[in-house]
This record gives sequence, structure tokens and C-alpha cells, in this order.
Amino acid sequence: MPSIKDIKEARKRLSGYIHRTPVLTSRTIDAMAGREVFFKCENLQKCGAFKIRGAGNAILSLSGEEASRGVATHSSGNHAAAVAQAASWRGINSYVVMPRTASEVKRKAVRSYGAEIFECGPTLESREKALAGVVADTGAHFVHPYDDLMVVSGQGTAALELLEQAGPLDSIVVPVGGGGLASGTAVCAAAISPNTAVLAAEPGGADDAYRSFKSGKLVPSVEPDTIADGLLTSLSDLTFSIISRYAEDIVTVSDEAIIEAMKLVWERMKIVIEPSAAVPLATILTRRAAAYGNRVGVILSGGNVDLSNLPF
Amino acid sequence: MPSIKDIKEARKRLSGYIHRTPVLTSRTIDAMAGREVFFKCENLQKCGAFKIRGAGNAILSLSGEEASRGVATHSSGNHAAAVAQAASWRGINSYVVMPRTASEVKRKAVRSYGAEIFECGPTLESREKALAGVVADTGAHFVHPYDDLMVVSGQGTAALELLEQAGPLDSIVVPVGGGGLASGTAVCAAAISPNTAVLAAEPGGADDAYRSFKSGKLVPSVEPDTIADGLLTSLSDLTFSIISRYAEDIVTVSDEAIIEAMKLVWERMKIVIEPSAAVPLATILTRRAAAYGNRVGVILSGGNVDLSNLPF
Repeated sequence: MPSIKDIKEARKRLSGYIHRTPVLTSRTIDAMAGREVFFKCENLQKCGAFKIRGAGNAILSLSGEEASRGVATHSSGNHAAAVAQAASWRGINSYVVMPRTASEVKRKAVRSYGAEIFECGPTLESREKALAGVVADTGAHFVHPYDDLMVVSGQGTAALELLEQAGPLDSIVVPVGGGGLASGTAVCAAAISPNTAVLAAEPGGADDAYRSFKSGKLVPSVEPDTIADGLLTSLSDLTFSIISRYAEDIVTVSDEAIIEAMKLVWERMKIVIEPSAAVPLATILTRRAAAYGNRVGVILSGGNVDLSNLPF
Repeated sequence: MPSIKDIKEARKRLSGYIHRTPVLTSRTIDAMAGREVFFKCENLQKCGAFKIRGAGNAILSLSGEEASRGVATHSSGNHAAAVAQAASWRGINSYVVMPRTASEVKRKAVRSYGAEIFECGPTLESREKALAGVVADTGAHFVHPYDDLMVVSGQGTAALELLEQAGPLDSIVVPVGGGGLASGTAVCAAAISPNTAVLAAEPGGADDAYRSFKSGKLVPSVEPDTIADGLLTSLSDLTFSIISRYAEDIVTVSDEAIIEAMKLVWERMKIVIEPSAAVPLATILTRRAAAYGNRVGVILSGGNVDLSNLPF
């Protein structure tokens, strides 16, 4: 398991490469939520999402020898762009396996950071097979989107900053997909602010983490269906064990509430967030957990959306 | 004419009431522009626009006697919300004359800050007549949206902050409608950073300031037609004389370029700006002025948009 020491080392490693993103507040939203909400704006992070923290930490910590043949990953979204960006910092090649179904917007973003793209079918099997081929051909180091100690430690740096910027918090609410951000946040809070409950927020249409947490055994995601396209993946053994141990609760919420929360943030806070980033606020506004308390931190995980295809 | 002393006093007066908004940058936009661009984010300001600076300064500087019967204005947009908000700080009434054609979104925003709304026809004559009636009935103090020394001084505080936050700038580009922001910016830069050229950016479909500046006499706006709905008004004697004296140039740009610049800021910077706020960047990307230099400041004037009616 990663420790707070790993998270603090990740912060040092990432310093100068990524933004210390601002924490914003909104009186209107506080009034609606009935508590103070502190938004950690990872939508304003490099590549438009927190993912650069984990991918950056993993790639910056590779030895020269390990890094020399480049890095590879499979992802249709923010992790792919983050791997490509962090590889460019080190001047090494990056190879990204993307499903044929990924939007042209995402493909263009990944390419703009310098990655070479390999197409695959839309299933996890197809992704993994294509990735194995790329790794065999190139000798590249595989950077998993969340089942990786260095990635989880990197994601934990967002909570480290948030706790410094916002002051004492009763809870931190984060979206959960593969669980990298939730795990890093939970480890961080447990170590430096044990009175802060970490709550994971999940779309009802992709509730594998909720079902795993409640049943005590890892249930993979089957045909998830939600507008929060960053949260379709399942927990791994690593993230499930961290979340089981350190998270206070996992709560689910409907796509309707997610879209409403997303629109509210755009309208009142004047910032662009993607559906996945709106899930925590959606749970707060619909009061899905008991443990929010008076001072709640929310990690706005990303802001990468296709403006020509908005849900409102 | 307002002086830098007036602007510095405005800053003191507004302190604690408004945000010192952040200055953001984007490497992608810098690469496209061929220069460094520093964005002063007044879209993240109270009420979602710089207008609270001017209205706030004007209303906070009224004597108890002057303020006692409330304040009034006519506006269909951001100035109306700003007057209502600043009146609430002093616990006084506010009366806003709005055209019947104003959107329900804007009406709701103004009402939410506590103003009483009076409807009028869509012409300037109808507005002024309705306002005169309200002032006669209530004895309220009229806060003009830009033809007012205290309002211009308040708007100048944005440039004061920008010059402190961004360091030396070769130019500052601001949108121009009635000219309050352009005037305040020009007075501020002339006093504290005389090597910084102030450029005003205007939609080609509402180019009264451009024509006035080039001809040397005030030409009112006739049937303006642009997506930048905050820039439909004409300069006043006050703002025309300040801009004539202190601005380096006025440049115009097409609505197509405005929409493209607006979308670019949403996509790459993850912040919501309204069309009027995109006009300066649109002129930079289409290289409309000679004087931008290597380090350009841009005031992103506001972020109030109707999300159900976007131009892209």
C-alpha cells in the first residue's frame, strides 16, 4: 500500500511540472448544499484533469533505463493524454491504445501531446491484447491508469494540496471509477487529517465500487451505463483494498442529478467540468451520505468535454 | 477625468467586497497567438463580470443621505446585477429598468440579488423614460453603467490588479461597449505603466467606438448587430474623451472570430466566458493590431451566458 511518504515524494517529484490548482467556492452552492463546499479545481490542471498527477509521478520515477524504451497505456480518456504529456517531459516515446470508438476530440488531444496511437476494439480484452502487442514490440513500460502504487501516490497529491488550501475539512468527496483518485485521497486524509471522512461518489449506472464496498468483495463493472464517461472502469485489487480500509462510504447518484450539478457549476462558478467531475456535488445536493459535515472538500476531477455534444 | 488616485481609492473601497480574480495562462493559446497572453479572469468575479467594480465603487461612495432612497439603473445585463448586489451590501433598495425582451435568465439573476424590476420597451428612449419615472417616484440615485466617474474608476481596478499580477505588459486588450472598462484601463495604464499600450477590441457589427476613434468625433451606435451582447451600447462624452486621449488603438473583429475565440477559451482553459469577453482574444488571434507586443494582458470581462443557447 502507498503511504503518506510516497504521496509527499510524489509532490516533490511533480513540482514545477504541474499546477497547484486553485480551490474555489460559491455562496450560491453553499446555500443550496447547506454547508461550505471547497472545490479543488483539477479541471484547471495540465491536460485538464488530475490524471497528470498519477501518470506524471509514475513516469518521472522511472530510471533512465526503464524509461528509455518509452511508456505505453490503454485509455480512451484523460489518462492517455496525461501519459503522453508526462512522456514528453522526459523526451521519451509514448504509445496509447485507444478504442476505435473514442471520439476524434480525444484522439486529437492525445496526438497533440505527442503520443503514437494504436486502435483496438471497444472491449477490455481487445484493449489488453493490443497493449500486450505494443509492449512486446517496443519494450515500453506500461503505466496502468490506477492499479499502480506510483499512480495512486500521485493522485493523492490533490488531497494533500486541498487540505492545506481549505483548512480543516469534515469530509472530502471524490468520484470513483478505477479508484486511483479515491485511494490516493483516502491514504492522504487518513494520515494527515484522520477526522476527515473520505466519501467516494459513483454514478448509479456504474456502481461496481458501491457493490464491492458493501459486499466486501470485488465486483467488476458489467455493461456500465452513465454519462460520466471517466467512471466506467472497475476497481482493481489494489484500489479495492485501499478503499475498503480507508473510505468512510461509497454513495451513488443518478445521471439526472449529475447533469444538473454539472450545469450548476458551469453557470454559477463559470468553470467547465466534465460529467465525472460533477458526481460528488450531485451526491451532496441530493444528500446521499451522512458524513459530509459542515466543511466539505470536493475534487473536481476534470474538464475535458466535447462542446458540440453537451447534455444540456 | 478620473485619475489613478481615484482608481486606487476605488480599490480600497472595494476591498473585502469583491474578488482579486486570478490571472490564468494557456500554453496552447500562447503558441497560437505567437506571444504570451495573461488573462485577467473577471468571469470569476462576483456577479460573473467586472461590472461589480464600477457599480460597487459608485454605490459604496454614496453618502448615507444619498444612499438612503436606494439606487436605480437601466440595463439588461451585468451592470443591473452588479447594482443590485452592491445595493444589498449597503442594505438599500435597488430598482432596475429592464427591456421586456431581456431573457428570463437575466431577469432571474437580477431578482436573486434583491432588485425590484421595472419593464420597458427595447429602445433607449423607452429605457430612459422608464428610468426617469422610477427616479421621480423613489428618489433613488441613478448609477449610470459607464458615464460616471466613480464607475470608470472602479472598472480601472481590474487593470491595476492585472499589472501587479502579470508583471510588465506590452499591451492590455479590453472589449469596448460603453467604454467604462476601456476608460478605466487606459487611465490606469497611462499612470502606472506608460509603456503598456491599451487597445480596445470591438465587434465589427457594433463598431461605433472604432468609428468615433478614427473620425475624432462621437458617433453613436445605430442598430448594432453582434453576438457580443454586452457591447451594444455607445460611448458617452466622458468615455470617448478618455479613450481618445489614452487608448493606442481600437480594432474590430467578426462574430465568427469571436465565437471561435470563445470556444477556444472554454475548451483549453476550462472556463466559461461570454461572447463579449472573447472579443480581445479574437482580435489577437486574427492579428488586428500592430501594438500587441510579446506580453499581452487580456481582461476576460464576464462569464454570464445562457447555457441552453450557445453559439457552438
